[in-house]
Amino acid sequence: MNAAEPDQTFEDEASLQLNDDGSLRHLLTLKGLDHSTLVDLLDEAESYLRPEGALPARSGALAGRTVANLFFEPSTRTRASFDLAGKRLGADVLNLDVNTSSRKKGESILDTIYTLEAMRCDIMVVRDASAGVPAYIAKHVKDHVSILNAGESDVSHPTQGLLDLLTIRRHKGNFDNLTVAFVGDIRHSRVVRSTAWGLRTLGVDSFRLISPPAMAPDADDMPFATIVDNLEEGLAGADVIMALRIQRERIGNLDGIPSIDEYFANFGISHDRMKLAKPDAIVMHPGPMNRGIEIEGALADSAQSVITEQVANGVAVRMAVLARVAQSLGRR
Amino acid sequence: MNAAEPDQTFEDEASLQLNDDGSLRHLLTLKGLDHSTLVDLLDEAESYLRPEGALPARSGALAGRTVANLFFEPSTRTRASFDLAGKRLGADVLNLDVNTSSRKKGESILDTIYTLEAMRCDIMVVRDASAGVPAYIAKHVKDHVSILNAGESDVSHPTQGLLDLLTIRRHKGNFDNLTVAFVGDIRHSRVVRSTAWGLRTLGVDSFRLISPPAMAPDADDMPFATIVDNLEEGLAGADVIMALRIQRERIGNLDGIPSIDEYFANFGISHDRMKLAKPDAIVMHPGPMNRGIEIEGALADSAQSVITEQVANGVAVRMAVLARVAQSLGRR
Amino acid sequence: MNAAEPDQTFEDEASLQLNDDGSLRHLLTLKGLDHSTLVDLLDEAESYLRPEGALPARSGALAGRTVANLFFEPSTRTRASFDLAGKRLGADVLNLDVNTSSRKKGESILDTIYTLEAMRCDIMVVRDASAGVPAYIAKHVKDHVSILNAGESDVSHPTQGLLDLLTIRRHKGNFDNLTVAFVGDIRHSRVVRSTAWGLRTLGVDSFRLISPPAMAPDADDMPFATIVDNLEEGLAGADVIMALRIQRERIGNLDGIPSIDEYFANFGISHDRMKLAKPDAIVMHPGPMNRGIEIEGALADSAQSVITEQVANGVAVRMAVLARVAQSLGRR
Repeated sequence: MNAAEPDQTFEDEASLQLNDDGSLRHLLTLKGLDHSTLVDLLDEAESYLRPEGALPARSGALAGRTVANLFFEPSTRTRASFDLAGKRLGADVLNLDVNTSSRKKGESILDTIYTLEAMRCDIMVVRDASAGVPAYIAKHVKDHVSILNAGESDVSHPTQGLLDLLTIRRHKGNFDNLTVAFVGDIRHSRVVRSTAWGLRTLGVDSFRLISPPAMAPDADDMPFATIVDNLEEGLAGADVIMALRIQRERIGNLDGIPSIDEYFANFGISHDRMKLAKPDAIVMHPGPMNRGIEIEGALADSAQSVITEQVANGVAVRMAVLARVAQSLGRR
Repeated sequence: MNAAEPDQTFEDEASLQLNDDGSLRHLLTLKGLDHSTLVDLLDEAESYLRPEGALPARSGALAGRTVANLFFEPSTRTRASFDLAGKRLGADVLNLDVNTSSRKKGESILDTIYTLEAMRCDIMVVRDASAGVPAYIAKHVKDHVSILNAGESDVSHPTQGLLDLLTIRRHKGNFDNLTVAFVGDIRHSRVVRSTAWGLRTLGVDSFRLISPPAMAPDADDMPFATIVDNLEEGLAGADVIMALRIQRERIGNLDGIPSIDEYFANFGISHDRMKLAKPDAIVMHPGPMNRGIEIEGALADSAQSVITEQVANGVAVRMAVLARVAQSLGRR
Repeated sequence: MNAAEPDQTFEDEASLQLNDDGSLRHLLTLKGLDHSTLVDLLDEAESYLRPEGALPARSGALAGRTVANLFFEPSTRTRASFDLAGKRLGADVLNLDVNTSSRKKGESILDTIYTLEAMRCDIMVVRDASAGVPAYIAKHVKDHVSILNAGESDVSHPTQGLLDLLTIRRHKGNFDNLTVAFVGDIRHSRVVRSTAWGLRTLGVDSFRLISPPAMAPDADDMPFATIVDNLEEGLAGADVIMALRIQRERIGNLDGIPSIDEYFANFGISHDRMKLAKPDAIVMHPGPMNRGIEIEGALADSAQSVITEQVANGVAVRMAVLARVAQSLGRR
């Protein structure tokens, strides 16, 4: 395994995530989160999976605890996933409506957090459009509070990363010798920045970041990965292909990509394109999909697609994260 | 009893609602739903009624199950009614905020459904402004998922129909020889299209659809009913009168009805007008009421009005529908 | 103790709050609420407090009951506080989204209440921008329904008042010989109108209402209090100082206060200003705070500040109120 070398800033953030005994206190980023913590979370998550048609897993791991979903950016799937994960572990879940929030009245985000803390919210799930907000909050909360990052600007979305890791592990068995290709708007993707760092910690060596040049990341952003602007080249021999959601309004501004059709022709993943990858390659998407833009609709619904498994695994990893931080809360 | 003769399209939709063993799988429409299923749902609903002031009925019929309320049109009462019905049966209830939903981001409605399915939502309660959406979804979900129509364009609102049937049955004992008059914007009413077809299956023969000509339905829409444009004529000897909610902005465009006062004078239901109906006639309204437009305020609050009973029965029929589909889910 | 002398209108409203046996039926206002009821609520609330880091208090006092949060004005903290209070007592909690409410469709507020009543909501928590709405509703609901005022125009916010009373009692032991100073927009403050009347009933004699002249109350509004337009004079020797939230847009219209800086210079509470008060004086704020306008940020975070305790006590007093009205509901 080649462990990632986090830079100083992220080392701080990563260390903030763990208690002195090494147990999980906050979940802020996968960059710098250690191998054994990652594997433990994936194992715990796997224990919550159930066969299709069976009732979902439940436990009382969060009985008496309160989870506050504090979303300053809109979300359906991540919010719903945390909501169900919390309820199925027996927590009270408080969903705060961002449209009618105090923050609109000019209250600082820390005062909102202190308020929820005083109301005995143990675990706060935070999504915010500004980089650094989850770590900033985590530095200010009391000992008996945990912060979970549910999406942070272009920077981090660690539970999305975990669900991707779990999905890949279940299909590929292990992470050795995998080639993983991300396709689309890499530059603005908090998903890539979470999943790729997690995969690297788990031992993946070969990464391809495929995008039009205007959507490529800075060279030193993920230095272990190869930046590619040709889809065919990027997909060749890949084991895992992840198509990324694109903002439609960005398409018209790309060199040589004046239209959605043009984007799909150059960077859309289709059955035909998948022939370039390994025969048993899987295709992923963090959702919500733009069918016919990032991905051919028929491919998304095919046996090669693991997109709905990602969603199912999403509830499981969120249960795992909630259960682990609750465990450490119980000991503080 | 005169069973309704559903046309081909609705026969399809109606058959989609039942499992092979005849048990309820989805609730999409009352048009074509058979007599015994209707009576079974009403009987089950009646078992959830409690005397005023008593605690509401509860059970664990939905323990471990998840109900997702997916409302793409605004709603207070129907959403709240399903929410309470689900909670009182022990389900986890997920309320999805349409304003911040993925659908806004361009995700197809089926992808939203597949996402909820992957999160193990067993029962999805769907309201949508487009005709055909609930049946379309029902055709695409997995075996272990049920779809309940909570309001579909002008077409269908089956749980509203059921609560109307229950309310009428409790007041009239049976459905033989009843005359039922609907008053108002028949053309755009999904309520009439549900309640009237249900009543017909239960044996009602005499229907009056009373409205200004511009709000009359097409002749072949409910062929068993008499279209009337004179309120006095329509109310004469009626047993049940249902005033329908009208969109205020439609009033100015009606021939001979330039104002709200004019509308009330011609089509508003009042104590005076009720004298034309049977002495024991009841007055109903699906809510929310415009007092002084469709109905005289004092009449709405009088002993002849069963409007709040309709609301109470609404929770009971939704509990019945949830309990019945959960029963069949348990056997799949 | 000097009991307040409520005027006729408020005597009506106050008497509406109690059942014939003196138990609490609704909570509409603290003005006129008697000494023993206040003390009982504070004692009950105190029983729900737990040391920091411990799990919050829970009970089954509201098992089987339904609390509806009906907020016609935006709120984060009060809504969240009632939501958690209800859930921790075992109630089902229904949160109604004001943006998609029936009231928008023109339904009268009473019809919304009748609807919730028919759905077996036992306790309705109402916030409204119009004066008189909670009492108006309370006069119209059935015997088995309780109304709790969660903020009413500029008039009343009784649970905020109770949490202030509890916070002061816990710090000062009793209410004899206290001097309490409110600072800011007294004229528009429902907080002052609740807390001050409650304190008066509990025996406080010395009140200072400190504000720019344009924000002073009418002289007969709280006749027992001294109106002051000089902060230094108002703070001198005070035991309790409560800074009030100010609407930023009101500042520019005040004589001699053309800017936020000017407001802070004249009426902002700071460490320096606190030296005028008693050495053990506490500083309070109902939240959300505008740091640097009403209150110096560092003071809000200091040991003299009891602002987060107010929030914690808020959940406790709401649990107490819910538990007390549920008790009386059980006997009806």
